[in-house]
Amino acid sequence: MEKRALLYEGKAKKVYTTNDPQLVWLEYKDSATAFNGEKKSQIAGKGRLNNEITSLIFSKLHNEGIPSHFVQKLSSTEQLVKKVDIIPIEVVVRNKAAGSFSKRLGVEEGKSLTMPLVEFYLKDDELGDPLITEDHIRELQLASRIEVEILKQNALAVNEILSNWFATMNVQLIDFKLEFGKDAKNEIILADEISPDTCRLWDVKTQEKLDKDVFRRDLGNLTSAYETIYSRILATQVTQA
Amino acid sequence: MEKRALLYEGKAKKVYTTNDPQLVWLEYKDSATAFNGEKKSQIAGKGRLNNEITSLIFSKLHNEGIPSHFVQKLSSTEQLVKKVDIIPIEVVVRNKAAGSFSKRLGVEEGKSLTMPLVEFYLKDDELGDPLITEDHIRELQLASRIEVEILKQNALAVNEILSNWFATMNVQLIDFKLEFGKDAKNEIILADEISPDTCRLWDVKTQEKLDKDVFRRDLGNLTSAYETIYSRILATQVTQA
Repeated sequence: MEKRALLYEGKAKKVYTTNDPQLVWLEYKDSATAFNGEKKSQIAGKGRLNNEITSLIFSKLHNEGIPSHFVQKLSSTEQLVKKVDIIPIEVVVRNKAAGSFSKRLGVEEGKSLTMPLVEFYLKDDELGDPLITEDHIRELQLASRIEVEILKQNALAVNEILSNWFATMNVQLIDFKLEFGKDAKNEIILADEISPDTCRLWDVKTQEKLDKDVFRRDLGNLTSAYETIYSRILATQVTQA
Repeated sequence: MEKRALLYEGKAKKVYTTNDPQLVWLEYKDSATAFNGEKKSQIAGKGRLNNEITSLIFSKLHNEGIPSHFVQKLSSTEQLVKKVDIIPIEVVVRNKAAGSFSKRLGVEEGKSLTMPLVEFYLKDDELGDPLITEDHIRELQLASRIEVEILKQNALAVNEILSNWFATMNVQLIDFKLEFGKDAKNEIILADEISPDTCRLWDVKTQEKLDKDVFRRDLGNLTSAYETIYSRILATQVTQA
């Protein structure tokens, strides 16, 4: 596989074309951003950790029957993935109140929700990724009614698998954000990344935050939090082997 | 009917108890507020106009079979209404993009929507009345699934009636906000007011704004805009008589 032209550079990743038009080469960067890019930093090792963690999570999801863009890890900071047209909807699943949910609706952080709650946000940095309803999705022609149902069911299935898996590592999956894309066959598959950048992960015993809130809220050392998640996931691999 | 103790004072109305525990006495105030109370003014005549217009609109809706809290007009600024427990959800119906919809989602003001769109907002001034989804409504226990469906169907029925009625007055109903409450029999009925304070109303020919945007955006004389709406509604009454 050959890495070719830079196709797109996002806040956390670079995307390159390859010699296969259906595959792209992802490079995870060391940049950390929060509050729609208002807070920025370079954190050595973050790209590697997110690449390693995302690769292990997508492999786990593949084994559980969830299709994604992930093909293989290429290096400690690089991944080969299927090229998809990203659906401009951020799909959020919440198990406990936290972050923007708590702030917008006045619900105490950490409060358990009666059932996993799915939210949709318009993926648009200029607009600040606003919350949208299913009617907004149809009006803006972002996805059809059936596609919205596929997004929701996939997101809930990912939540079920990952919540149970993280629980074996003494980690609570509080909430997370997914992105989906359409592949060459026009099928909807999971894309982007799943990492402590896109999940809230709390230690079950200490309630310590092991995710990007460490950066957002200046709670300490981000890489050490991400290393904790990485090593706990790695430990499950050793057990299975 | 006897006006008794002040029960509650809102931004636009005062509510008094009466000698009948199931009825309250509403007094429309001359205060204008916008942007969650950040912009404020006293505008002589506004209370009278909103009371007169709301009374005529609720009478029209009553004739078309929409149950509401409205009992009768008592004076030019006062109304007798059924006492209800307000459901803390603001129900918005949109026919064209405008206001917060345009701003949040980047849609040009005045763009026609493919079909009337219903949105729900949490009625909470401290939180700035945030947009909420149906899942949020259930999680916050604001209303049951069936009640949400009743709100939506009632709101769409009101939209159908009022859009057609305003069209006969050369006025486009762009969007509006409704509130609902539960009466003594625990039935959901329309409450609050329907006036140029709670609707966007544009002249069909000139596109002139005949609603609270005149105040929000400093577009001219608010009472003259409201007088236009009031006189056009009155003209339909004369035709019918």
